[in-house]
Amino acid sequence: MKHVALLLAQGFEPAEAIIVVDVLRRLGIAVDLLACQGDLEVLSYFDIRMKADALLADNAARLYDAVICPGGPQGARNLGANVQVVDFLKAHLAAERLVCTICSAGAHVLAANGLLEGKRYVCSGENHTLYGDGKYVDEKVVKHGNILTGKGLGTAFEFALALGTLLVDPQIVANKAEHIYFDYRPGEMVCFD
Amino acid sequence: MKHVALLLAQGFEPAEAIIVVDVLRRLGIAVDLLACQGDLEVLSYFDIRMKADALLADNAARLYDAVICPGGPQGARNLGANVQVVDFLKAHLAAERLVCTICSAGAHVLAANGLLEGKRYVCSGENHTLYGDGKYVDEKVVKHGNILTGKGLGTAFEFALALGTLLVDPQIVANKAEHIYFDYRPGEMVCFD
Repeated sequence: MKHVALLLAQGFEPAEAIIVVDVLRRLGIAVDLLACQGDLEVLSYFDIRMKADALLADNAARLYDAVICPGGPQGARNLGANVQVVDFLKAHLAAERLVCTICSAGAHVLAANGLLEGKRYVCSGENHTLYGDGKYVDEKVVKHGNILTGKGLGTAFEFALALGTLLVDPQIVANKAEHIYFDYRPGEMVCFD
Repeated sequence: MKHVALLLAQGFEPAEAIIVVDVLRRLGIAVDLLACQGDLEVLSYFDIRMKADALLADNAARLYDAVICPGGPQGARNLGANVQVVDFLKAHLAAERLVCTICSAGAHVLAANGLLEGKRYVCSGENHTLYGDGKYVDEKVVKHGNILTGKGLGTAFEFALALGTLLVDPQIVANKAEHIYFDYRPGEMVCFD
Protein backbone atom coordinates (compact mmCIF):
# COMPACT_ATOMS: atom_id res chain seq x y z
CA MET A 1 0.00 0.00 0.00
CA LYS A 2 1.32 3.42 -0.92
CA HIS A 3 1.74 5.85 1.95
CA VAL A 4 1.96 9.64 1.65
CA ALA A 5 2.17 12.60 4.02
CA LEU A 6 0.36 15.91 3.73
CA LEU A 7 1.92 18.75 5.72
CA LEU A 8 -0.29 21.23 7.58
CA ALA A 9 0.82 24.57 8.96
CA GLN A 10 -1.34 27.39 10.28
CA GLY A 11 -3.03 29.16 7.36
CA PHE A 12 -3.11 26.15 4.99
CA GLU A 13 -5.65 26.22 2.15
CA PRO A 14 -8.28 23.82 3.50
CA ALA A 15 -9.94 22.73 0.27
CA GLU A 16 -6.60 22.10 -1.45
CA ALA A 17 -5.59 19.89 1.47
CA ILE A 18 -8.90 18.04 1.83
CA ILE A 19 -9.48 17.42 -1.87
CA VAL A 20 -6.09 15.71 -2.05
CA VAL A 21 -6.60 13.63 1.11
CA ASP A 22 -10.11 12.65 0.04
CA VAL A 23 -9.15 11.62 -3.51
CA LEU A 24 -6.03 9.71 -2.40
CA ARG A 25 -7.87 7.83 0.38
CA ARG A 26 -10.59 6.93 -2.14
CA LEU A 27 -7.78 5.42 -4.25
CA GLY A 28 -6.70 3.22 -1.35
CA ILE A 29 -3.58 5.28 -0.61
CA ALA A 30 -2.76 5.81 3.08
CA VAL A 31 -2.46 9.50 3.93
CA ASP A 32 -0.94 10.91 7.14
CA LEU A 33 -2.00 14.48 7.89
CA LEU A 34 1.07 15.81 9.72
CA ALA A 35 0.91 19.04 11.75
CA CYS A 36 4.13 21.06 11.38
CA GLN A 37 3.80 22.67 14.79
CA GLY A 38 3.53 21.63 18.45
CA ASP A 39 -0.09 20.49 18.55
CA LEU A 40 -2.50 18.57 16.33
CA GLU A 41 -5.19 21.21 15.83
CA VAL A 42 -4.32 23.48 12.91
CA LEU A 43 -6.30 26.56 11.89
CA SER A 44 -6.69 26.94 8.13
CA TYR A 45 -6.97 29.92 5.81
CA PHE A 46 -10.68 30.84 6.11
CA ASP A 47 -10.76 29.64 9.72
CA ILE A 48 -11.53 25.95 9.52
CA ARG A 49 -10.19 24.01 12.49
CA MET A 50 -8.86 20.62 11.55
CA LYS A 51 -7.05 17.98 13.55
CA ALA A 52 -3.99 16.37 12.04
CA ASP A 53 -3.34 12.65 12.49
CA ALA A 54 0.13 13.17 13.97
CA LEU A 55 2.97 15.65 14.31
CA LEU A 56 5.73 15.97 11.72
CA ALA A 57 8.12 16.11 14.70
CA ASP A 58 7.16 12.51 15.55
CA ASN A 59 7.57 11.32 11.94
CA ALA A 60 10.49 13.41 10.70
CA ALA A 61 12.73 10.37 10.13
CA ARG A 62 10.16 8.48 8.01
CA LEU A 63 10.27 8.25 4.24
CA TYR A 64 6.87 8.36 2.49
CA ASP A 65 6.14 7.60 -1.15
CA ALA A 66 5.12 11.23 -1.57
CA VAL A 67 4.95 14.40 0.50
CA ILE A 68 2.36 17.08 -0.29
CA CYS A 69 2.36 20.77 0.67
CA PRO A 70 -0.94 22.62 0.20
CA GLY A 71 -1.04 26.37 -0.48
CA GLY A 72 -2.69 29.21 1.36
CA PRO A 73 -0.56 32.39 1.47
CA GLN A 74 0.45 32.13 5.13
CA GLY A 75 0.33 28.34 5.33
CA ALA A 76 2.81 27.98 2.47
CA ARG A 77 5.13 30.63 3.95
CA ASN A 78 4.97 28.85 7.31
CA LEU A 79 5.97 25.55 5.69
CA GLY A 80 8.79 27.18 3.72
CA ALA A 81 10.22 28.86 6.83
CA ASN A 82 10.17 25.65 8.91
CA VAL A 83 13.61 24.01 8.99
CA GLN A 84 12.13 20.62 9.91
CA VAL A 85 9.82 20.77 6.86
CA VAL A 86 12.67 21.75 4.52
CA ASP A 87 14.90 18.96 5.87
CA PHE A 88 12.01 16.48 5.47
CA LEU A 89 11.50 17.51 1.84
CA LYS A 90 15.26 17.36 1.13
CA ALA A 91 15.42 13.82 2.53
CA HIS A 92 12.53 12.79 0.27
CA LEU A 93 14.12 14.33 -2.82
CA ALA A 94 17.44 12.64 -2.01
CA ALA A 95 15.59 9.31 -1.75
CA GLU A 96 13.81 10.00 -5.08
CA ARG A 97 10.36 10.13 -3.51
CA LEU A 98 7.72 12.51 -4.89
CA VAL A 99 7.57 16.04 -3.49
CA CYS A 100 4.34 17.80 -4.42
CA THR A 101 3.01 21.33 -3.96
CA ILE A 102 -0.17 23.18 -4.81
CA CYS A 103 -0.72 26.88 -5.37
CA SER A 104 1.71 29.26 -3.65
CA ALA A 105 3.59 26.37 -1.97
CA GLY A 106 5.49 25.81 -5.23
CA ALA A 107 7.07 29.22 -4.75
CA HIS A 108 7.15 29.75 -0.96
CA VAL A 109 8.27 26.20 -0.11
CA LEU A 110 10.21 24.84 -3.10
CA ALA A 111 11.65 27.85 -4.94
CA ALA A 112 12.26 29.79 -1.72
CA ASN A 113 14.51 26.99 -0.48
CA GLY A 114 16.25 26.17 -3.76
CA LEU A 115 14.61 22.71 -3.87
CA LEU A 116 13.63 22.95 -7.54
CA GLU A 117 17.29 23.11 -8.68
CA GLY A 118 16.13 24.74 -11.90
CA LYS A 119 13.25 22.35 -12.62
CA ARG A 120 10.02 23.47 -14.28
CA TYR A 121 7.03 24.06 -12.00
CA VAL A 122 3.75 25.89 -11.65
CA CYS A 123 2.36 27.94 -8.77
CA SER A 124 -0.34 30.56 -8.26
CA GLY A 125 -0.24 34.20 -9.34
CA GLU A 126 3.06 36.04 -9.59
CA ASN A 127 4.69 34.18 -6.69
CA HIS A 128 7.26 32.63 -9.02
CA THR A 129 8.78 36.09 -9.63
CA LEU A 130 9.81 36.32 -5.95
CA TYR A 131 12.50 33.63 -6.15
CA GLY A 132 15.31 32.80 -8.56
CA ASP A 133 14.99 28.99 -8.45
CA GLY A 134 12.95 26.99 -10.97
CA LYS A 135 11.35 27.75 -14.34
CA TYR A 136 7.66 28.72 -14.17
CA VAL A 137 5.31 26.99 -16.63
CA ASP A 138 1.67 28.10 -16.89
CA GLU A 139 -0.12 24.73 -16.78
CA LYS A 140 -2.66 23.14 -14.41
CA VAL A 141 -0.30 20.38 -13.24
CA VAL A 142 3.44 20.08 -13.97
CA LYS A 143 5.73 17.13 -13.32
CA HIS A 144 9.51 17.48 -13.60
CA GLY A 145 11.53 14.63 -12.19
CA ASN A 146 10.24 13.85 -8.71
CA ILE A 147 8.54 17.22 -8.28
CA LEU A 148 4.81 17.56 -8.98
CA THR A 149 3.21 21.01 -8.80
CA GLY A 150 -0.37 22.23 -9.21
CA LYS A 151 -1.49 25.75 -10.06
CA GLY A 152 -4.20 26.41 -7.48
CA LEU A 153 -7.44 25.65 -5.73
CA GLY A 154 -9.56 25.29 -8.86
CA THR A 155 -7.18 22.67 -10.26
CA ALA A 156 -6.86 20.63 -7.04
CA PHE A 157 -8.86 17.68 -8.40
CA GLU A 158 -6.60 17.48 -11.47
CA PHE A 159 -3.57 17.66 -9.16
CA ALA A 160 -4.84 14.95 -6.80
CA LEU A 161 -5.81 12.61 -9.64
CA ALA A 162 -2.48 13.21 -11.41
CA LEU A 163 -0.66 12.31 -8.20
CA GLY A 164 -2.88 9.25 -7.97
CA THR A 165 -1.71 8.06 -11.40
CA LEU A 166 1.91 8.22 -10.16
CA LEU A 167 1.10 5.96 -7.19
CA VAL A 168 -1.52 3.44 -8.37
CA ASP A 169 -2.86 1.98 -11.64
CA PRO A 170 -4.04 4.92 -13.82
CA GLN A 171 -7.13 2.91 -14.81
CA ILE A 172 -8.22 2.83 -11.15
CA VAL A 173 -7.77 6.61 -11.07
CA ALA A 174 -9.88 7.04 -14.22
CA ASN A 175 -12.64 4.85 -12.74
CA LYS A 176 -12.62 6.79 -9.46
CA ALA A 177 -12.77 10.13 -11.28
CA GLU A 178 -15.86 8.90 -13.10
CA HIS A 179 -17.35 7.64 -9.84
CA ILE A 180 -17.12 11.11 -8.28
CA TYR A 181 -18.40 12.77 -11.50
CA PHE A 182 -15.16 14.57 -12.21
CA ASP A 183 -14.31 15.18 -15.83
CA TYR A 184 -10.66 14.13 -15.64
CA ARG A 185 -8.27 14.46 -18.57
CA PRO A 186 -4.90 12.78 -17.82
CA GLY A 187 -3.22 15.03 -20.42
CA GLU A 188 -3.60 17.98 -18.05
CA MET A 189 -0.45 16.82 -16.26
CA VAL A 190 2.42 18.18 -18.35
CA CYS A 191 5.64 16.19 -17.87
CA PHE A 192 9.22 17.43 -18.32
CA ASP A 193 11.11 14.26 -17.48
CA MET B 1 -23.80 40.39 4.46
CA LYS B 2 -25.30 37.04 3.50
CA HIS B 3 -25.16 34.34 6.12
CA VAL B 4 -25.46 30.61 5.51
CA ALA B 5 -25.23 27.43 7.59
CA LEU B 6 -23.54 24.19 6.60
CA LEU B 7 -24.69 21.14 8.57
CA LEU B 8 -22.19 18.53 9.70
CA ALA B 9 -23.02 15.04 10.94
CA GLN B 10 -20.66 12.13 11.50
CA GLY B 11 -19.63 10.68 8.13
CA PHE B 12 -20.00 13.90 6.11
CA GLU B 13 -18.10 14.14 2.83
CA PRO B 14 -15.20 16.42 3.85
CA ALA B 15 -14.22 17.84 0.47
CA GLU B 16 -17.84 18.59 -0.47
CA ALA B 17 -18.21 20.50 2.79
CA ILE B 18 -14.88 22.34 2.67
CA ILE B 19 -15.05 23.33 -1.00
CA VAL B 20 -18.40 25.00 -0.32
CA VAL B 21 -17.25 26.78 2.87
CA ASP B 22 -14.02 27.90 1.21
CA VAL B 23 -15.66 29.25 -1.96
CA LEU B 24 -18.46 31.02 -0.06
CA ARG B 25 -16.08 32.62 2.46
CA ARG B 26 -13.92 33.81 -0.46
CA LEU B 27 -17.09 35.49 -1.80
CA GLY B 28 -17.53 37.39 1.47
CA ILE B 29 -20.45 35.22 2.62
CA ALA B 30 -20.51 34.32 6.32
CA VAL B 31 -20.69 30.55 6.86
CA ASP B 32 -21.52 28.83 10.15
CA LEU B 33 -20.38 25.22 10.32
CA LEU B 34 -23.03 23.67 12.59
CA ALA B 35 -22.50 20.27 14.22
CA CYS B 36 -25.73 18.26 14.30
CA GLN B 37 -24.73 16.33 17.42
CA GLY B 38 -23.74 17.02 21.01
CA ASP B 39 -20.14 18.18 20.50
CA LEU B 40 -18.22 20.32 18.04
CA GLU B 41 -15.71 17.77 16.75
CA VAL B 42 -17.17 15.80 13.85
CA LEU B 43 -15.47 12.86 12.15
CA SER B 44 -15.86 12.85 8.37
CA TYR B 45 -16.09 10.12 5.76
CA PHE B 46 -12.40 9.20 5.21
CA ASP B 47 -11.57 10.05 8.82
CA ILE B 48 -10.83 13.75 8.83
CA ARG B 49 -11.52 15.37 12.21
CA MET B 50 -12.99 18.83 11.88
CA LYS B 51 -14.30 21.24 14.47
CA ALA B 52 -17.60 22.96 13.77
CA ASP B 53 -18.11 26.62 14.71
CA ALA B 54 -21.22 25.91 16.79
CA LEU B 55 -23.95 23.37 17.47
CA LEU B 56 -27.17 23.27 15.46
CA ALA B 57 -28.91 22.82 18.84
CA ASP B 58 -27.78 26.34 19.82
CA ASN B 59 -28.90 27.88 16.52
CA ALA B 60 -32.04 25.89 15.69
CA ALA B 61 -34.31 28.94 15.88
CA ARG B 62 -32.19 31.06 13.48
CA LEU B 63 -33.07 31.64 9.85
CA TYR B 64 -30.11 31.74 7.45
CA ASP B 65 -30.11 32.87 3.82
CA ALA B 66 -29.24 29.31 2.86
CA VAL B 67 -28.67 25.94 4.52
CA ILE B 68 -26.33 23.40 2.95
CA CYS B 69 -26.17 19.63 3.54
CA PRO B 70 -23.06 17.85 2.23
CA GLY B 71 -23.13 14.22 1.19
CA GLY B 72 -21.19 11.21 2.36
CA PRO B 73 -23.26 8.01 2.60
CA GLN B 74 -23.52 7.91 6.39
CA GLY B 75 -23.32 11.65 6.93
CA ALA B 76 -26.32 12.28 4.68
CA ARG B 77 -28.30 9.47 6.34
CA ASN B 78 -27.45 10.91 9.76
CA LEU B 79 -28.74 14.34 8.71
CA GLY B 80 -31.92 12.88 7.20
CA ALA B 81 -32.70 10.89 10.36
CA ASN B 82 -32.20 13.88 12.68
CA VAL B 83 -35.53 15.48 13.62
CA GLN B 84 -33.87 18.76 14.54
CA VAL B 85 -32.22 18.94 11.10
CA VAL B 86 -35.49 18.17 9.30
CA ASP B 87 -37.38 20.80 11.33
CA PHE B 88 -34.61 23.33 10.61
CA LEU B 89 -34.85 22.67 6.86
CA LYS B 90 -38.68 22.84 6.93
CA ALA B 91 -38.52 26.23 8.68
CA HIS B 92 -36.14 27.51 5.99
CA LEU B 93 -38.32 26.26 3.16
CA ALA B 94 -41.40 27.83 4.79
CA ALA B 95 -39.52 31.14 4.98
CA GLU B 96 -38.46 30.81 1.32
CA ARG B 97 -34.76 30.54 2.12
CA LEU B 98 -32.47 28.34 0.02
CA VAL B 99 -32.08 24.68 1.00
CA CYS B 100 -29.10 23.06 -0.73
CA THR B 101 -27.75 19.52 -0.89
CA ILE B 102 -24.82 17.79 -2.54
CA CYS B 103 -24.43 14.16 -3.56
CA SER B 104 -26.51 11.61 -1.63
CA ALA B 105 -27.97 14.30 0.67
CA GLY B 106 -30.49 15.16 -2.05
CA ALA B 107 -31.95 11.69 -1.60
CA HIS B 108 -31.28 10.80 2.05
CA VAL B 109 -32.17 14.24 3.45
CA LEU B 110 -34.66 15.87 1.07
CA ALA B 111 -36.48 13.04 -0.74
CA ALA B 112 -36.44 10.78 2.33
CA ASN B 113 -38.36 13.41 4.28
CA GLY B 114 -40.71 14.55 1.51
CA LEU B 115 -39.11 18.01 1.42
CA LEU B 116 -38.89 18.14 -2.38
CA GLU B 117 -42.69 18.07 -2.78
CA GLY B 118 -42.24 16.78 -6.32
CA LYS B 119 -39.54 19.25 -7.36
CA ARG B 120 -36.73 18.34 -9.74
CA TYR B 121 -33.35 17.54 -8.19
CA VAL B 122 -30.09 15.72 -8.68
CA CYS B 123 -28.16 13.42 -6.36
CA SER B 124 -25.44 10.78 -6.67
CA GLY B 125 -25.79 7.28 -8.05
CA GLU B 126 -29.09 5.43 -7.80
CA ASN B 127 -30.07 6.97 -4.46
CA HIS B 128 -33.05 8.72 -6.07
CA THR B 129 -34.68 5.33 -6.70
CA LEU B 130 -34.97 4.74 -2.92
CA TYR B 131 -37.61 7.39 -2.30
CA GLY B 132 -40.85 8.44 -4.00
CA ASP B 133 -40.47 12.19 -3.58
CA GLY B 134 -38.98 14.47 -6.28
CA LYS B 135 -38.08 14.06 -9.94
CA TYR B 136 -34.45 13.10 -10.63
CA VAL B 137 -32.64 15.10 -13.33
CA ASP B 138 -29.13 14.06 -14.42
CA GLU B 139 -27.32 17.43 -14.35
CA LYS B 140 -24.34 18.79 -12.42
CA VAL B 141 -26.38 21.40 -10.51
CA VAL B 142 -30.18 21.72 -10.42
CA LYS B 143 -32.28 24.58 -9.04
CA HIS B 144 -36.03 24.21 -8.59
CA GLY B 145 -37.69 26.89 -6.53
CA ASN B 146 -35.70 27.34 -3.33
CA ILE B 147 -34.00 23.98 -3.58
CA LEU B 148 -30.49 23.74 -5.04
CA THR B 149 -28.93 20.30 -5.53
CA GLY B 150 -25.53 19.17 -6.77
CA LYS B 151 -24.61 15.76 -8.17
CA GLY B 152 -21.47 14.88 -6.26
CA LEU B 153 -17.92 15.50 -5.15
CA GLY B 154 -16.48 16.19 -8.61
CA THR B 155 -19.07 18.92 -9.22
CA ALA B 156 -18.71 20.62 -5.82
CA PHE B 157 -16.99 23.71 -7.26
CA GLU B 158 -19.81 24.19 -9.76
CA PHE B 159 -22.32 23.74 -6.93
CA ALA B 160 -20.57 26.23 -4.61
CA LEU B 161 -20.18 28.84 -7.36
CA ALA B 162 -23.80 28.39 -8.47
CA LEU B 163 -24.93 28.94 -4.87
CA GLY B 164 -22.68 32.00 -4.79
CA THR B 165 -24.51 33.51 -7.79
CA LEU B 166 -27.80 33.18 -5.87
CA LEU B 167 -26.39 35.16 -2.92
CA VAL B 168 -24.04 37.80 -4.35
CA ASP B 169 -23.37 39.59 -7.65
CA PRO B 170 -22.67 36.90 -10.30
CA GLN B 171 -19.83 39.02 -11.69
CA ILE B 172 -18.04 38.76 -8.34
CA VAL B 173 -18.48 34.98 -8.55
CA ALA B 174 -17.07 34.89 -12.09
CA ASN B 175 -14.05 36.95 -10.99
CA LYS B 176 -13.42 34.71 -7.99
CA ALA B 177 -13.68 31.55 -10.12
CA GLU B 178 -11.01 32.99 -12.40
CA HIS B 179 -8.87 33.94 -9.40
CA ILE B 180 -8.81 30.32 -8.18
CA TYR B 181 -8.23 29.01 -11.74
CA PHE B 182 -11.56 27.22 -11.94
CA ASP B 183 -13.13 26.97 -15.36
CA TYR B 184 -16.67 27.96 -14.33
CA ARG B 185 -19.59 27.91 -16.74
CA PRO B 186 -22.73 29.45 -15.15
CA GLY B 187 -24.92 27.47 -17.58
CA GLU B 188 -24.11 24.30 -15.64
CA MET B 189 -26.82 25.25 -13.12
CA VAL B 190 -30.06 24.06 -14.73
CA CYS B 191 -33.11 25.96 -13.40
CA PHE B 192 -36.71 24.74 -13.22
CA ASP B 193 -38.37 27.82 -11.71
